[in-house]
Amino acid sequence: MKPLAQLTARLAYEFSDIDLARAALTHRSAGGKNNERLEFLGDALLDLVISEQLYHLRPQANEGDLSRLRASLVRRDALARLAGELDLGDYLALGPGELRSGGYRRKSILADALEALLGAIYLDGGYTRASEVVLALYRESLEKLPDAAELRDPKTLLQERLQARGLDRPEYRVDQVAGEAHQQRFTVVCQVSAFDVETRGEGSSRRRAEQAAARAALDEISDEPAA
Amino acid sequence: MKPLAQLTARLAYEFSDIDLARAALTHRSAGGKNNERLEFLGDALLDLVISEQLYHLRPQANEGDLSRLRASLVRRDALARLAGELDLGDYLALGPGELRSGGYRRKSILADALEALLGAIYLDGGYTRASEVVLALYRESLEKLPDAAELRDPKTLLQERLQARGLDRPEYRVDQVAGEAHQQRFTVVCQVSAFDVETRGEGSSRRRAEQAAARAALDEISDEPAA
Repeated sequence: MKPLAQLTARLAYEFSDIDLARAALTHRSAGGKNNERLEFLGDALLDLVISEQLYHLRPQANEGDLSRLRASLVRRDALARLAGELDLGDYLALGPGELRSGGYRRKSILADALEALLGAIYLDGGYTRASEVVLALYRESLEKLPDAAELRDPKTLLQERLQARGLDRPEYRVDQVAGEAHQQRFTVVCQVSAFDVETRGEGSSRRRAEQAAARAALDEISDEPAA
Repeated sequence: MKPLAQLTARLAYEFSDIDLARAALTHRSAGGKNNERLEFLGDALLDLVISEQLYHLRPQANEGDLSRLRASLVRRDALARLAGELDLGDYLALGPGELRSGGYRRKSILADALEALLGAIYLDGGYTRASEVVLALYRESLEKLPDAAELRDPKTLLQERLQARGLDRPEYRVDQVAGEAHQQRFTVVCQVSAFDVETRGEGSSRRRAEQAAARAALDEISDEPAA
């Protein structure tokens, strides 16, 4: 493990209580005081700091678009990427099993540890300092913020397209559930009456199957001549 | 509508920018600048303030219990009750339709407006002041915090009971999906092999049906002699 001082230098944050930093970097597999409670706190801190930024950066965005933008910034993959840039894996305390299986590279472990570290900074230094650390981490992501429309899921997009033309909402129904427990496959039918379109989607949950069916309906509809 | 000064006096918070308070109290039915973006912010603020309190008040609670405690404090019913104590309905700007149908008494409208008001205070006065307002509102709820175990849902409880005895996890499978789209009923089977117990649950979603089946399994198992 690298010395913690290297990490705090990169974050431009000096801990008063270094035990908080150690707890934040301790995965539950290592036993003892682990980072799950700090992750709970850091997750909420991150949400608030990012929410405020998006509120200011996108003054015209509605609540749904703000939520989707936030989700894209705080989701596991995004956090794991930021954790990677900090080489956070080199500072983690892991149990022997996780060490052997390369746990310091696992996205969920890295993302959770980064959230925990932010929670620790919040407890140690207060909201303003923690918020500065978050903004430094997210500087580039906030500068390259995607267009909110790109983040809309197929069900939302389909409903918006129909609404924009004053057409009825699509209807979804579960058509089939197959397979054993824990490996079930749902088949959902999406019906868009205005276009006389009926598509199917499959997935491991009802929601996933609905999204797949909506995606298929969007494809069908975009081939139709505009009304 | 009552004068805003009465509300801000009860919150012990004076707005620098009173337009923020007005926006927070404007439901989308009233047109113009409404409170949905502020609600997005207030929701995140509330989560962080409550998370920190729970972190300190329940030093032994794990992340799951902290999440359930927080959910119980920030859920719609709890917020609507607090909004009711502030007579928040008397300060709302609603459209004519919502006015006629008594929208100022609707729980979702009251809860959303309270979150928006907290978001407005955060923007107007910063984190520390907003946090003080949240804590004053929640003083009683935080003093009478329930035991985390009371909040565990049936699926979680069932799994914990089995785990505590070193038994296999229950298995869930969807047995039937009936009814038209938007009114579908799911039937789920819960199988607890160690007790040779198989129960059924019904609900409007797979998740609800699973919870009902788990509740039935818990009832069955608690009748069994302890192993």
